Amino acid sequence: MKKIEHIGIAVKNLEVSNLIFEKLLGAPAYKFEDVESEGVSTSFFAVGPNKIELLAATNPDSPIAKFIEKKGEGIHHIAFEVEDILSEIERLKSEGFVVLNEVPKKGADNKLVVFLHPKSTNGVLIELCQEIK
Amino acid sequence: MKKIEHIGIAVKNLEVSNLIFEKLLGAPAYKFEDVESEGVSTSFFAVGPNKIELLAATNPDSPIAKFIEKKGEGIHHIAFEVEDILSEIERLKSEGFVVLNEVPKKGADNKLVVFLHPKSTNGVLIELCQEIK
Repeated sequence: MKKIEHIGIAVKNLEVSNLIFEKLLGAPAYKFEDVESEGVSTSFFAVGPNKIELLAATNPDSPIAKFIEKKGEGIHHIAFEVEDILSEIERLKSEGFVVLNEVPKKGADNKLVVFLHPKSTNGVLIELCQEIK
Repeated sequence: MKKIEHIGIAVKNLEVSNLIFEKLLGAPAYKFEDVESEGVSTSFFAVGPNKIELLAATNPDSPIAKFIEKKGEGIHHIAFEVEDILSEIERLKSEGFVVLNEVPKKGADNKLVVFLHPKSTNGVLIELCQEIK
């Protein structure tokens, strides 16, 4: 694991939250991206070597809509950057972690991503991501 | 804000969770510290420029015990490293954020820390921290 690539935060209203995080972090979002397959609109803020990703649902079946319904707004996942996502998946499976999608999928920000089930990681939804070259 | 200094994760049993995060991150915790004033035992893991802090309650009145009782195990806070914590407190107050302790207190890992109320930050408990020199 190279670093915390980003922290994903589930929000109800992306415009409202963009303003909050612009004030908090002292600089506006540098990128906006919709991920249709996940039913989310996202915005990205830079914090030194790390990022904050805000996620708002674009439809009621979106995982973000369901998360907010259950838990309210707040931290949704931690994403770690990895060198080689396929070997990390194998390593983590062999250590007993539950990988939600064994075939990496295309996420936001030009990344291949996999998620680990929170049951195997103290209730924390963990994403591994690798830049698509 | 210089970077995500660490992510704090509330856990029930520090020994059990140390093993989980050692497997996840591929390396053991490099530091253990009790913060008596907060009623917590902590462990720290390095992930490149960032850290993961596990927090377990040492008494039933600890904020971590109350957090787990209400929400279960999971991400408790995000800590951002700042250059000058006093000027950041003033800046954030002037932007309308609610600072929980206006006088920075000594936290784990040789840091001065302040917390922002989650009500003003989309449900996310945010810590600002500055290394004590």
